[in-house]
Amino acid sequence: MSHPEAVRWSDDGRAVDVLDQTRLPDAEVRLRLASAEEAAEAIRVLRVRGAPAIGVAAALAFAVEMERWTDRPAAEFRARLDRTRRLLGSTRPTAVNLFWALERMARRAAEMPDAPNDAVARALRAEATAILEEDRAMCRRIGEHGLALLPDEPIGVLTHCNAGALATSGMGTALAPIDLAHAAGRPVHVYVDETRPLLQGGRITAWELLRAGVPATLVVDSVAAFLMQQGRVRLVIVGADRIAANGDVANKIGTYGLAVLARHHGVPFYVAAPASTVDVATPTGRDIPIEERDPDEVRRGFGRLTAPAGVPVYAPAFDVTPAELVTAIITDRGVLRPPYTDSIRRALGEPDARPARARALQGS
Amino acid sequence: MSHPEAVRWSDDGRAVDVLDQTRLPDAEVRLRLASAEEAAEAIRVLRVRGAPAIGVAAALAFAVEMERWTDRPAAEFRARLDRTRRLLGSTRPTAVNLFWALERMARRAAEMPDAPNDAVARALRAEATAILEEDRAMCRRIGEHGLALLPDEPIGVLTHCNAGALATSGMGTALAPIDLAHAAGRPVHVYVDETRPLLQGGRITAWELLRAGVPATLVVDSVAAFLMQQGRVRLVIVGADRIAANGDVANKIGTYGLAVLARHHGVPFYVAAPASTVDVATPTGRDIPIEERDPDEVRRGFGRLTAPAGVPVYAPAFDVTPAELVTAIITDRGVLRPPYTDSIRRALGEPDARPARARALQGS
Repeated sequence: MSHPEAVRWSDDGRAVDVLDQTRLPDAEVRLRLASAEEAAEAIRVLRVRGAPAIGVAAALAFAVEMERWTDRPAAEFRARLDRTRRLLGSTRPTAVNLFWALERMARRAAEMPDAPNDAVARALRAEATAILEEDRAMCRRIGEHGLALLPDEPIGVLTHCNAGALATSGMGTALAPIDLAHAAGRPVHVYVDETRPLLQGGRITAWELLRAGVPATLVVDSVAAFLMQQGRVRLVIVGADRIAANGDVANKIGTYGLAVLARHHGVPFYVAAPASTVDVATPTGRDIPIEERDPDEVRRGFGRLTAPAGVPVYAPAFDVTPAELVTAIITDRGVLRPPYTDSIRRALGEPDARPARARALQGS
Repeated sequence: MSHPEAVRWSDDGRAVDVLDQTRLPDAEVRLRLASAEEAAEAIRVLRVRGAPAIGVAAALAFAVEMERWTDRPAAEFRARLDRTRRLLGSTRPTAVNLFWALERMARRAAEMPDAPNDAVARALRAEATAILEEDRAMCRRIGEHGLALLPDEPIGVLTHCNAGALATSGMGTALAPIDLAHAAGRPVHVYVDETRPLLQGGRITAWELLRAGVPATLVVDSVAAFLMQQGRVRLVIVGADRIAANGDVANKIGTYGLAVLARHHGVPFYVAAPASTVDVATPTGRDIPIEERDPDEVRRGFGRLTAPAGVPVYAPAFDVTPAELVTAIITDRGVLRPPYTDSIRRALGEPDARPARARALQGS
């Protein structure tokens, strides 16, 4: 599978090259972001989306921006560092990967307080490239760990929302094992949930798979149960927005229902996510706040009124799947099995060894 | 609850008055159908929809049409009868209530072979009025039987698609118990599934409930599981397109998934439908053919492209819920309980006593 690249260096290396996801599925348009301002706009309006992809795009844009100021006095250059970090950090205020990437970039510069500007800029470019490559490697490792869980026979796999290449800078998370299975000639067929209200499945996942030649069929969300009843779906694999220390999984609204349906039909339910998605400072799913979205994403989500303008809407962006419904969690550090409290601790170390985070989830 | 009337006599009694459902939710437009031609167009393009409402509209239009020809020679009048029946019968070729209503009207005329035209026309008007009133009474009886199943306490009820007033000439089927509960001052709150792909929940059910002042909240289909997990939905009630002799229920796609989710959460799952929906000539749900809809209802259902134009789509219009997931079937002849093979036989008589039907389901 030749997956689309959500974010990469431009060919001349002087800009960030992103696929404009707001244009999908109508058009495949790549943008050249040659400044932090341009990158900030792209992140803010979701031209780049998906927590890993946002972090990578911000890191690359940080490096690009600083290279524009190397001929200025050192004090001005250092002030630009802070301003750039703040600008990029203001785009999606709750995206944890964004802050993590920006903090890492700023720390790299802070480590060389007496270095000339161009040396700092070179170090920032190297750091951004490392962040990009680590993200790609993370995806590949998830793919390899997940591939071992896919039976080598014709199988229908259901996915929800987009945890594919376009949410990362690599081959994605939930779609990475499928990507590798397809590349290995295995007869995998993906059923793609449309994923109302924002249709990331229909607009993005279906587009990714079609482009890559992976056999895929789009369904509205309510078809999932019928597919399992018919035996057409024999495995579910989704991404995660946050995983609690006990293995409870917050992900796009609709994920919990799929987990219940999978259990009823004896279908394995896998979650694929980088180990960094596990937030050991969150004890259980009950501690994860669930963001509610704008009701008009439901009432007018397609550019026209599809419900009475005045009807109340409940529009949670995420739901929480209890750990007991999760067959396994596929991470870049290996496949975690129940009991998750133990397997997560083994994979990540003790909770106290990691900084506590206060993260709110947001739509993607 | 003052429910909207999908179909009724016009105030002067000389036409069929229907609510144009293709204009919902934007506008509440009533149409005056003064001929069989006009009624046929309205049924064909779904201005009137829902099997009971279609049957009633056709019966009323039949009577209106024949009153236009009473001054013609008897032979011409009788020829017009056949032509009108064929015209109205050509609109939705698989809607069983339509054929049942037209057959009943034609039989009434055939019973008076020597009567003058105006006497036949009067008899047809009376027959159409009887069909209308029987449909309304059927809805009310379903409402009364269902009301007894609703706990008299604040309760969230989930429904799917539209089995409300706008699918009948009365107060609906699945929504009838809710209608009566609200009228009695009970604190019922309805969660309305949007019901992709055609959004009958968002466009029609939400509009009906909002108009009637029944507390209601619209959700995308994938929110249902989360609502049950939170305890916000404590009862599910849906309509049915066909019920097999063993109690298996064919209904709008997504119904089966709701039944599985309800079972998982210990939530009662009720089906409300006229006894005529039970097709004793269909032994089980496996014998019910499932129509597939146009993929563009998914890919372009909102007037714009929401998925790649070339992506394969699986778009079943209905699914089948096995009888073992159905808590009870609320009919106009009473509440049927498992084992359904027995309770259906008691309510309807032996299979051999009723004519076999070969019905295909179609979208509504």
